[in-house]
Amino acid sequence: MDQQYQALVYVTLRPSVLDPAGTAVKSGLQHLGYDNVNQVRIGKYIEVTLTAADEATAQQQLDRICDQLLANPVIETYRFELIPADAPVGC
Amino acid sequence: MDQQYQALVYVTLRPSVLDPAGTAVKSGLQHLGYDNVNQVRIGKYIEVTLTAADEATAQQQLDRICDQLLANPVIETYRFELIPADAPVGC
Repeated sequence: MDQQYQALVYVTLRPSVLDPAGTAVKSGLQHLGYDNVNQVRIGKYIEVTLTAADEATAQQQLDRICDQLLANPVIETYRFELIPADAPVGC
Repeated sequence: MDQQYQALVYVTLRPSVLDPAGTAVKSGLQHLGYDNVNQVRIGKYIEVTLTAADEATAQQQLDRICDQLLANPVIETYRFELIPADAPVGC
């Protein structure tokens, strides 16, 4: 019987890649008086709900999904956490 | 002496808010043959590096930063993890 999983996927720019959005947010924060903010890097947080036979299958499929669509491997890296769907998630 | 912290901020749409980007990614995945993907919700993952006197101060400041700039409280919620900057992060 298939099990439902929730994947929490984090896609971030590679460290060597410039982050203009992050730079803009940082200067916005400094305008608001937050001079102690040193760096801001912005990425994507994606929650994917899927069904799979078991955790290994879900893991393999998520790797393919991230490589094919969710992350651009040239400038981004990804990592994910896989949670059986009935377990509570942070927010 | 000020301590440096890294905050991992997760900004997500409120559950009641429609997510057209997530819907588009879901249908893209189904075109690629991933029919077992039931839902996709897309949010922001923001890494903020800042200095503060102590963790409580950093925490309060992050709440203000999220309320003022990183999240739109009408349609989004946020949560964050605060890590002393020398501890390792996931990716």
